[in-house]
Amino acid sequence: MELKGFRFSAVEAAIKKPGRLDLALIFSDAPAQVAAVFTTNKVQAAPVMISRERASSGSCRALLVNSGNANACTGEQGRLDALECGRRAAESLGLADDELLIASTGVIGQALPMDRFRGAIEPLVDGLAAGTLENVAAAIMTTDTFPKLERRSGSAGGKSYGIAGVAKGAGMIQPNMATMLSFLVTDAAVDASFLKSAFAECIDASFNSITVDGDMSTNDTALIIANGAAGNPLIMAGTPEGDAFRARLLDVLLSLAKLIVKDGEGATKFVEVKVQGAVSKAEAKTAALSVANSLLVKTAFFGQDANWGRIICAVGYSGAQLDQGRVGIRFDDVVMVENGVFVGGNAEAAGTEVLQKKEFTVTIDLHLGNGEASVYTSDLSYDYVRINADYRT
Amino acid sequence: MELKGFRFSAVEAAIKKPGRLDLALIFSDAPAQVAAVFTTNKVQAAPVMISRERASSGSCRALLVNSGNANACTGEQGRLDALECGRRAAESLGLADDELLIASTGVIGQALPMDRFRGAIEPLVDGLAAGTLENVAAAIMTTDTFPKLERRSGSAGGKSYGIAGVAKGAGMIQPNMATMLSFLVTDAAVDASFLKSAFAECIDASFNSITVDGDMSTNDTALIIANGAAGNPLIMAGTPEGDAFRARLLDVLLSLAKLIVKDGEGATKFVEVKVQGAVSKAEAKTAALSVANSLLVKTAFFGQDANWGRIICAVGYSGAQLDQGRVGIRFDDVVMVENGVFVGGNAEAAGTEVLQKKEFTVTIDLHLGNGEASVYTSDLSYDYVRINADYRT
Repeated sequence: MELKGFRFSAVEAAIKKPGRLDLALIFSDAPAQVAAVFTTNKVQAAPVMISRERASSGSCRALLVNSGNANACTGEQGRLDALECGRRAAESLGLADDELLIASTGVIGQALPMDRFRGAIEPLVDGLAAGTLENVAAAIMTTDTFPKLERRSGSAGGKSYGIAGVAKGAGMIQPNMATMLSFLVTDAAVDASFLKSAFAECIDASFNSITVDGDMSTNDTALIIANGAAGNPLIMAGTPEGDAFRARLLDVLLSLAKLIVKDGEGATKFVEVKVQGAVSKAEAKTAALSVANSLLVKTAFFGQDANWGRIICAVGYSGAQLDQGRVGIRFDDVVMVENGVFVGGNAEAAGTEVLQKKEFTVTIDLHLGNGEASVYTSDLSYDYVRINADYRT
Repeated sequence: MELKGFRFSAVEAAIKKPGRLDLALIFSDAPAQVAAVFTTNKVQAAPVMISRERASSGSCRALLVNSGNANACTGEQGRLDALECGRRAAESLGLADDELLIASTGVIGQALPMDRFRGAIEPLVDGLAAGTLENVAAAIMTTDTFPKLERRSGSAGGKSYGIAGVAKGAGMIQPNMATMLSFLVTDAAVDASFLKSAFAECIDASFNSITVDGDMSTNDTALIIANGAAGNPLIMAGTPEGDAFRARLLDVLLSLAKLIVKDGEGATKFVEVKVQGAVSKAEAKTAALSVANSLLVKTAFFGQDANWGRIICAVGYSGAQLDQGRVGIRFDDVVMVENGVFVGGNAEAAGTEVLQKKEFTVTIDLHLGNGEASVYTSDLSYDYVRINADYRT
């Protein structure tokens, strides 16, 4: 799959430690549209505040991103540092400052190592000649154990186009707006307001439907840059081409979101928590999130314990409407609970067998209405504790 | 300290497994007042539904409680079983059914072993001749590692009285109404409406201000039985005797609540998270709870990592009003953050030294108003995961 009019680069700037790519650049040869969502945390990193403002114009040319340092809680100096990094990259690229977005991920509260940034900008820009999106995916990793990249292709008006995206996740993953870093590029020409609304909708069904640990970061950013280089007629909302574009966009985002859960810190299980029969879609999601974030449920997944009692308990305190005498619970196709009570028989053994798999679905049917939602989550293992007790040290 | 007019008993009924006390009885020689709070979980155990109704009369004579089985999610049979257990105990004591409250704690979703209950009632009632509140404290333990009992004494109108309470906690501990089992008894004569309001207020500042894992159980129950056997003139609201009674009540409840946190599953640290300078007391509590429930904060406590960035991040997504440029954070007396940024200097080393202690206070000052609240919590250790991955098996 070709992505016309985009170039990529990544270098080793030794921002946290040497020996790995940690500074990346995405560049569009021509002015491009951008749609973006950012963390709703009231504590926001300097690059989030700057990029939110710049993205609100709806257009950009480039994105500079580093891992190893979040540049969050760094005060006025952090803002000046972020601005300087952006300015140096923009100058090298021949852009105005506000045509370039910036993003950072890593430890909170430490000043950016500006000497290393300054020295890395020139090789980074030079690298656009030969760099790949794979390099970018590698450079944005923090505690991720594998790079996350997804590509899809489509066509509109006889012109083929691509959508590709990278993401990083692993910790501080909770669904509320963007919950990590994810950057998508497409060479399709897309109507600006459709791009914006389709991106927000697809984010809600993907990154806003995953949870690893319930913590929402100060740096979460997801954005898509569309440069129109494919030369297709503008893709509009409410057309077959628009629907197809949205479907591919969701496919990329949901695939990236699932990769983030699979690579969740210490995760040994990938679990879809599906709530159906709620009074509304919103309540279904509330209930699913409550189950997916319960420490008791997550440790039971880790222990491969078919402990449906903890699941119904977490639904009970979620705030979703509930009649405990109607609730049904299934592990994959194994019915565990009907009308709020354990079905007995072979269910314990059969349910335990499901939980021994690497991936499974927990379905909770409230039998009250038509609201349905899925949340994707991981288990909570010793390694989650180990990774997070040791992270900075 | 003497508690006039109360008798206690506990026996081994082998409800879950043999070899420990698991069925207990509290009995008042004369009719007594009762004030009670119950779980707000929409999934409620049979004994909770029954006791809530009986306690609403404001009076009771006895409490029957078992550990090892929660009798939750057991449907109509669970309700019939709970009623039968209560009826048998009430008959043996010469009481009407509704003069006796019942409570259960343990595994969700398994039928009560009724044969064992039936056989245990007679020895339990016989045991009132020699039993103690210590026996009751031992019998209600589940994954608790030590029994929790507190006593205070006071006097009113020249008559001395006592307040004593027991509690069990360890897992599924989240502050929202009563969050575990706790039973208090006092021989003071207390005005009924004052007893009710003072109990609710003191619960809010004690059991509703602790969190171990953010899960709220289906069985949470806290109640106080006051039989007036001390013979004092009725203690009324708005009097020096009323204030003194409430202070002692809070002292017992807060001490029990802190014991529950200290005995939290896998806990190695006891941490007071204190938020001050919030726009209201409610927002201070919201922010403190967000910090106290953050897995990233709790694992950092376990790792003795002075990771204030995770703390400010959790305040940021709590929903409490916040100006990140004003936030201050202290570990005990060590200032870590001022005006939203790290103070530098010796703070990292000094802060780490604080976190190496068994008990410490994290103070977060939002510098916005006068709202202040404390939440008490534990860290999240390997042992939490081990205990909860293995609990049923």
